[in-house]
Amino acid sequence: MKGNSTPKSITIWLTGLSGSGKTTLAQQLKADLETSNWPIINLDGDELRKGIHKDLDFSDASRKENIRRTAELSNLLNDSKISVIASLISPFEADRQFAKEIIGSDRFIEVFCDCPLSICQQRDVKGLYQQVNEGTIQQFTGISSTYEIPLNPTLHLKTAELSISACLELIKKEIDDRLL
Amino acid sequence: MKGNSTPKSITIWLTGLSGSGKTTLAQQLKADLETSNWPIINLDGDELRKGIHKDLDFSDASRKENIRRTAELSNLLNDSKISVIASLISPFEADRQFAKEIIGSDRFIEVFCDCPLSICQQRDVKGLYQQVNEGTIQQFTGISSTYEIPLNPTLHLKTAELSISACLELIKKEIDDRLL
Repeated sequence: MKGNSTPKSITIWLTGLSGSGKTTLAQQLKADLETSNWPIINLDGDELRKGIHKDLDFSDASRKENIRRTAELSNLLNDSKISVIASLISPFEADRQFAKEIIGSDRFIEVFCDCPLSICQQRDVKGLYQQVNEGTIQQFTGISSTYEIPLNPTLHLKTAELSISACLELIKKEIDDRLL
Repeated sequence: MKGNSTPKSITIWLTGLSGSGKTTLAQQLKADLETSNWPIINLDGDELRKGIHKDLDFSDASRKENIRRTAELSNLLNDSKISVIASLISPFEADRQFAKEIIGSDRFIEVFCDCPLSICQQRDVKGLYQQVNEGTIQQFTGISSTYEIPLNPTLHLKTAELSISACLELIKKEIDDRLL
């Protein structure tokens, strides 16, 4: 990253299946950027659902509202010079486009964490695929609910093939390019 | 304020009638604190309702949900070392107590902006009391909806009697005391 001065604020929007590496990348990226004294916050879809978005379920309407609110929040934070790393499955192209409109295309970096479903299922960091198999979770993206492949993401990361550090370098290069 | 280091993050929660001075104090306080390199954000009830909270109306249930979400957001921001100035009418004692629980009493500073209704009506900065008179706004706090006086606020500011700078000094002294 370029020096210690506070740059223009941006939103890095990580989209992909559960288990595709969004949270891991988000946490590591935040730690890296904080060392440059960036005011930055992680908005993790799962965490938001435990608090601010506790009123939402997993219906299509609620998923849409989940994205809308997270985008509005990212916009508000960016306006206050705080950058955002948003990690949400965000399965629908229209909703991601809506998020981009709300936040502004100049400060929206869409990162597609592309990982085959079979590998996400093997990893199953949060044990969610197991719960789907047991029938305790319905409407799970990639299984019983659609994930629409991003049509034109800023970055397309094959997270099953690239190392975490390689992914982080690509994201940080994109941030640098965006801020130049 | 004490030096330029980033202190523990806190939430300054301004409660009071529309026109009692919350927004004015919030904006000036943010400007003052930013000069000390504080990561700080204004959460203004009216602004939130235009974006993140667009789905909420002015029923008691929605007012309660408005406070819950704002408190959860403040908590999330404080956890990320970002301080918050929240300006919401927040008319009900139980909801303010709930906000305090969510955010944590150690970092919650409740500031009661106490201004007689008659003076708020005279000021009518946002033209809302006029709209109430014309019947275009229903359920307006202080007129057709209750404002419950805070039972035990951290600060009780008589904003019709004190100058803005005097109010700001009292708030900043409280912040300093809290962070010592």
